[in-house]
Amino acid sequence: MSGTGKRVILSSRPVGLPTLDNFSFESFSTPPLTAGQVLVKVAHFSLDPYMRGRMDDARSYAPPIQIGSVMEAGAVGCVEASACEGLEVGDWVYGRMGWTDLAVIEGGLVQKLPISIEPKSLALGVLGMPGFTGWWGLTQHGRPKAGETLVVGAVTGPVGSMVAQLSKKLGLKTIGIAGSEEKCALAVDKFGVDHCLNHKSFNTPEALSAALEAVAPEGVDIYFENVGGKLFEAVIPRMNEHGRIPVCGMISWYNEGSMGTGALTETLSTPHLWRNILVRKLSVNGFIISDHWSNYLQFVREIEPLVESGTLKYLEDEVAGIEKAPSAFIGLLQGHNLGKLVVAV
Amino acid sequence: MSGTGKRVILSSRPVGLPTLDNFSFESFSTPPLTAGQVLVKVAHFSLDPYMRGRMDDARSYAPPIQIGSVMEAGAVGCVEASACEGLEVGDWVYGRMGWTDLAVIEGGLVQKLPISIEPKSLALGVLGMPGFTGWWGLTQHGRPKAGETLVVGAVTGPVGSMVAQLSKKLGLKTIGIAGSEEKCALAVDKFGVDHCLNHKSFNTPEALSAALEAVAPEGVDIYFENVGGKLFEAVIPRMNEHGRIPVCGMISWYNEGSMGTGALTETLSTPHLWRNILVRKLSVNGFIISDHWSNYLQFVREIEPLVESGTLKYLEDEVAGIEKAPSAFIGLLQGHNLGKLVVAV
Repeated sequence: MSGTGKRVILSSRPVGLPTLDNFSFESFSTPPLTAGQVLVKVAHFSLDPYMRGRMDDARSYAPPIQIGSVMEAGAVGCVEASACEGLEVGDWVYGRMGWTDLAVIEGGLVQKLPISIEPKSLALGVLGMPGFTGWWGLTQHGRPKAGETLVVGAVTGPVGSMVAQLSKKLGLKTIGIAGSEEKCALAVDKFGVDHCLNHKSFNTPEALSAALEAVAPEGVDIYFENVGGKLFEAVIPRMNEHGRIPVCGMISWYNEGSMGTGALTETLSTPHLWRNILVRKLSVNGFIISDHWSNYLQFVREIEPLVESGTLKYLEDEVAGIEKAPSAFIGLLQGHNLGKLVVAV
Repeated sequence: MSGTGKRVILSSRPVGLPTLDNFSFESFSTPPLTAGQVLVKVAHFSLDPYMRGRMDDARSYAPPIQIGSVMEAGAVGCVEASACEGLEVGDWVYGRMGWTDLAVIEGGLVQKLPISIEPKSLALGVLGMPGFTGWWGLTQHGRPKAGETLVVGAVTGPVGSMVAQLSKKLGLKTIGIAGSEEKCALAVDKFGVDHCLNHKSFNTPEALSAALEAVAPEGVDIYFENVGGKLFEAVIPRMNEHGRIPVCGMISWYNEGSMGTGALTETLSTPHLWRNILVRKLSVNGFIISDHWSNYLQFVREIEPLVESGTLKYLEDEVAGIEKAPSAFIGLLQGHNLGKLVVAV
């Protein structure tokens, strides 16, 4: 059994913010299945900030996407044909199938969805890689303690909203940062943060830092780093001694191409940052969630019931149609989405 | 009982490398003891790189030394008079008595020397704060595993030589960095490192990094950071994934006054460093050993027998006479000492 699919190709590398020119669409016929493979009809694929890094030809935690290759993404879909023992037609699976509506993939590279609640796209957001990232980073590297203060950026996004809600649940004062008044209202009303600052209201890191001081004069114990840039500059000077900084991303720097020093105030030059780590006795831990999939089922067991009961909320932005994926992704990098961005194929 | 002492005062703040003008000598008469105090005749005090930081009027892990105040230092000495229960005349004690030959101090601020081997000055070096720093940082934050590769700077100094020897003992490939051929020979012959690079032989961080790659093509798992500067720039690009960086000091940056960005290559701007922490999944932990004194006796119990048996070596540079303390300290900051620098009063 085979079929004709449509997929999105990286046609050129972006400089700074990607443009539509960097993407092209391609129709393709799926090859006949060989032993061990499955044909998956993709229902949803995920758009995430980390994909910007893969578009560069630079050392990262994963190889860059090659020009002419399909854009990478996690996706959920339904098995349409199987030459793999243990996977049946009709099984719902998760795998890194990419920006595509149809995929032939080794059965060993997908896993049956371990979640039972609907919609299936939750496996890309609150119960998928981003939610897992927030849960793992906070619990393993944040070492949260009741009564402490936590700051997290992109707080209405799927990583930030997981971190913020777990933080509140654990008894921490929780401060979200977001890029609009609408997002800030959502952060407070839906996700329950104690304060949310709209970083666009502050022209400089110093101004944002002062606003942070006003709502958290006690200082910051955990900075969950998924943003970088202005927020990074605002928070580092407010870190308390023995503070923890789990680092899972830096979206605001992804588009700067050279990641040049231009945007940074001199007080956060590399030696100053290093000195801050020393004198404030900070613990800074970079992590990539794909190293930790062996803990994924534990995460699902713990968090799925909270999502099912409505205790833990989520926000999903669904874009309909693969054609809209490039523009939606560019919008994501500019902060246009409110919650987890998925493409319904 | 009282006496007349001599001590060294911070007379002005240095800009960059301190000069003799920044120090002055003062004779003083000790006041009569009040309840709880002891009079200590200082035998040795310690000169350490961290003291440079205290001379600046900048936020650090401890308040700056005030102009007109005595220079701070850990010291060992013998109790000459006691108004403190539990401390007797003749007891040997350690305390932060400063650059002085005589001190009146609260008995609660000194501790009886927990070590039995000679000389007493070991309590300032291999069995004191610097040795303890190396032991704590390596075991707690370095998380060493046999077969890994470790790099440490200032390797003939009291922190570096402790780290290097423990690293070898635990089965790690151990690379020292030092500032002369003489030190490098000592590092190999006395302390047993696998390789030692003389950083003065390399004009640029890139050249030092290439030399490091030549002796450790497998990459670096632990960078014990006590130096900063050129070594920092050389090592970061060579860090392996999941590498650990305990940060206890950055002597090469202490003298730069503003800690300006000038010396750094653009590839280690703050955003690049942050991205390195993410994509290499590094664990960076600043620590200050004074937070961990409750573990000091455990350290002494473990390490003193190794020093006594000669299994663990040390190197002490003794300067005779308090008058020589300022010039010896300036020399220390320039790397003129070979081993642990102490002043015999």
